[in-house]
Amino acid sequence: MASDSSSASEQLVLSADPKHPANLICELCRGFYRLGWVTGTGGGTSIRHHDHIYIAPSGVQKEMMVPTDMFVMDFHSKEYLRKPQALKPSACTPLFLAAFTKRGAGCCIHTHSQWAVLITLLVERESGPDACFEIEQMEMIKGIPKGPGKQGALSYFDRLRIPIIENTAQEEDLTEALEQAMDNYPDTYAVLVRRHGIYTWGDNVHKAKTQCECLDYLFQVAVEMKKLGLPWTNASLADGL
Amino acid sequence: MASDSSSASEQLVLSADPKHPANLICELCRGFYRLGWVTGTGGGTSIRHHDHIYIAPSGVQKEMMVPTDMFVMDFHSKEYLRKPQALKPSACTPLFLAAFTKRGAGCCIHTHSQWAVLITLLVERESGPDACFEIEQMEMIKGIPKGPGKQGALSYFDRLRIPIIENTAQEEDLTEALEQAMDNYPDTYAVLVRRHGIYTWGDNVHKAKTQCECLDYLFQVAVEMKKLGLPWTNASLADGL
Amino acid sequence: MASDSSSASEQLVLSADPKHPANLICELCRGFYRLGWVTGTGGGTSIRHHDHIYIAPSGVQKEMMVPTDMFVMDFHSKEYLRKPQALKPSACTPLFLAAFTKRGAGCCIHTHSQWAVLITLLVERESGPDACFEIEQMEMIKGIPKGPGKQGALSYFDRLRIPIIENTAQEEDLTEALEQAMDNYPDTYAVLVRRHGIYTWGDNVHKAKTQCECLDYLFQVAVEMKKLGLPWTNASLADGL
Amino acid sequence: MASDSSSASEQLVLSADPKHPANLICELCRGFYRLGWVTGTGGGTSIRHHDHIYIAPSGVQKEMMVPTDMFVMDFHSKEYLRKPQALKPSACTPLFLAAFTKRGAGCCIHTHSQWAVLITLLVERESGPDACFEIEQMEMIKGIPKGPGKQGALSYFDRLRIPIIENTAQEEDLTEALEQAMDNYPDTYAVLVRRHGIYTWGDNVHKAKTQCECLDYLFQVAVEMKKLGLPWTNASLADGL
Repeated sequence: MASDSSSASEQLVLSADPKHPANLICELCRGFYRLGWVTGTGGGTSIRHHDHIYIAPSGVQKEMMVPTDMFVMDFHSKEYLRKPQALKPSACTPLFLAAFTKRGAGCCIHTHSQWAVLITLLVERESGPDACFEIEQMEMIKGIPKGPGKQGALSYFDRLRIPIIENTAQEEDLTEALEQAMDNYPDTYAVLVRRHGIYTWGDNVHKAKTQCECLDYLFQVAVEMKKLGLPWTNASLADGL
Repeated sequence: MASDSSSASEQLVLSADPKHPANLICELCRGFYRLGWVTGTGGGTSIRHHDHIYIAPSGVQKEMMVPTDMFVMDFHSKEYLRKPQALKPSACTPLFLAAFTKRGAGCCIHTHSQWAVLITLLVERESGPDACFEIEQMEMIKGIPKGPGKQGALSYFDRLRIPIIENTAQEEDLTEALEQAMDNYPDTYAVLVRRHGIYTWGDNVHKAKTQCECLDYLFQVAVEMKKLGLPWTNASLADGL
Repeated sequence: MASDSSSASEQLVLSADPKHPANLICELCRGFYRLGWVTGTGGGTSIRHHDHIYIAPSGVQKEMMVPTDMFVMDFHSKEYLRKPQALKPSACTPLFLAAFTKRGAGCCIHTHSQWAVLITLLVERESGPDACFEIEQMEMIKGIPKGPGKQGALSYFDRLRIPIIENTAQEEDLTEALEQAMDNYPDTYAVLVRRHGIYTWGDNVHKAKTQCECLDYLFQVAVEMKKLGLPWTNASLADGL
Repeated sequence: MASDSSSASEQLVLSADPKHPANLICELCRGFYRLGWVTGTGGGTSIRHHDHIYIAPSGVQKEMMVPTDMFVMDFHSKEYLRKPQALKPSACTPLFLAAFTKRGAGCCIHTHSQWAVLITLLVERESGPDACFEIEQMEMIKGIPKGPGKQGALSYFDRLRIPIIENTAQEEDLTEALEQAMDNYPDTYAVLVRRHGIYTWGDNVHKAKTQCECLDYLFQVAVEMKKLGLPWTNASLADGL
């Protein structure tokens, strides 16, 4: 059962350690705001730490959050251990949970990156609704792991594929499609959401942030490549796309 | 009657509380400067707090303002309670007042965002002088409320419409057209000004800032979409625009 | 005669007042670096304060300067009152002096803004070597004064013209062309240098910075307009440019 | 032989002097992260200080490094004097060494700048695999020295040439091609790596950073020029490229 403002509840989020999840989420989101990923209260971040899941609330300015804004959920019971009374839980929660339960992730980041959104529009135009984003022979691909249970990262010569799911009116209604994309792409660490943004996860905070930065770099370069008439893959090069 | 440097006047703007309107305007404008919204002394911000209206002055570097630079006006009499002698009142004042009186806003933000300006030029070219900016099926639309007196925010499937008014030689001469646009678009929380920028407001500072960020995000994506040949709405998609 | 490290020389640049020219130049250049105007040790800034001219040195990282890096020159004799021994005087010095002596400026800013450089290339392609940059009906034009000895600023309906001079191998060799441009455009507060950047000045630091920001905003919007096929002036609109 | 956590090892990296190489690398990388050069743990920096080579580790978030993360190598024996046990040495190490040994560099910077990557793609499309990036008549060219053992910097009228090598699956496998490019272009201070980034070096930290900033500025302008249909050299202008 949720305890809201008791000292036990406070102890879940108050720590002098900058690496404590409640502190880390605030620090990460300040950085993400500067990158334009979580403006307008959009986006969110969640960290699993042992049996506790820390989640940034809904509808708050992500660059101004403080640790006491965090929701804390029990990983096993999925019940809130801490629920700040003035705030709403994030609509991203079931999507974060999918990363934690289906993939064993330690951190999941959701951004509204403009580059991610533009990629979903460019892929839609050229490949129809079922396509995924594909790029190859870019050094930053090496920042993405091969897949759960596999050793090491993608090679420069591997083709990176990020599935794209259709957006829905309610964020929580994305859950089924996100889980389906995880099943269809068992090695992926990210899912793009059409006209919306991206969910990226990793085994821990360091890896989730790294993968999110690598992907966003690739999305930005890919948008610029499209402006300059440069193909994303050799196949499309051969096809004259 | 305005008292300029008396202690009573100082008390209107001096507070240790970072949420005090005089402090908030300075903090907001420092952030807006980093976003390129208020460079060259352009733009401005005003907050209504109970019966007091706080307004950033004209012609100052918005990223360097201090609380004692603020003008304070009585909401009912529209007389200045505080008028810093070395400074000029903002030419945006009657436009801010329109947001406060016609819409019951708690905060109004005026930016010279380049994306907003480019949107007004792109709409003009394609739809003539009476058009508004229209976009649909973008997640960030959900950051904009449905309208005054209506519950909740726009849906992902709603079409966002932001009216555009023609610029005038004097900023205060925009007032009539802005009020007319408010009448013509009773649900809008923003008005674009051709070749100039945007006025956005909200029930409070949090909402005005959030809405301003969501709109600017949409303007920036929309400009990039135009460069990439992507349509803003399904209708224009069908028309091959 | 220059005194290099004497206490008299130190007193010219050491002050606890953040508005002291030696402090202001350092603070301005830190901001200009963040805007991309003075990277790679490029660009510079000079302030005239009564009979003293403060000048940032050549070849230093502009975002890391400290007050003791400043050169100080006597306005009347043009002799250095302070010459840091380890540093070279700025090759921009005769150009800064032109702004101070021919225009009575209080501050002159030289940037390598990429937008300014692109503008000089776009004008060259379309109008040949003698052309100036012209834009009209943009709100930010109102940030530029009408001209020396004239009251007030340009109107929204005025056409802004910024002359462009050809670059030379040595920065100091630009002086004659810059002074000629000042003569040919008696109202201008700025001169663009082809494939190089811009010199902007103003009656004081506040005005020079404001004008530099307004112009850079206009250059950036104008480059984006060109990418989007939007004309800079009504005349070019009529001509279908 | 490497001593890992002894006090002797700590003394190699702990200093109150902000100019100490271990402190400088951390400070530089924080700035490079803000420029988008080393996101996603990409890129790296190394400084030679007398007989010691300081190298940022592999796979860490470059904006969060602390001095104790640094590897230290003996310049003559190429053995590690300090090897933080939890970290991996940088795969860039043999490339940094090439700059130190073949060019006598004091600092080598490796970035994943998107502008550099786009340049390698644009050159590939137009000139085939053996081409180098060429640009002329840009003021920022003057930030690049003429070559090892030569006095002064390139002139505004000189053509800057930066060789491009093909990327390999493993970073260390770039070494041979990088050294070959150094031999083929005896005056160059930088080598672009296709679809990857750039290695830039200089006689000291100041020069390496300056040259890296000048080159990145030129790459960014050159990408924008391509979008606007502007040629990089007069030859390509004459050819109508």
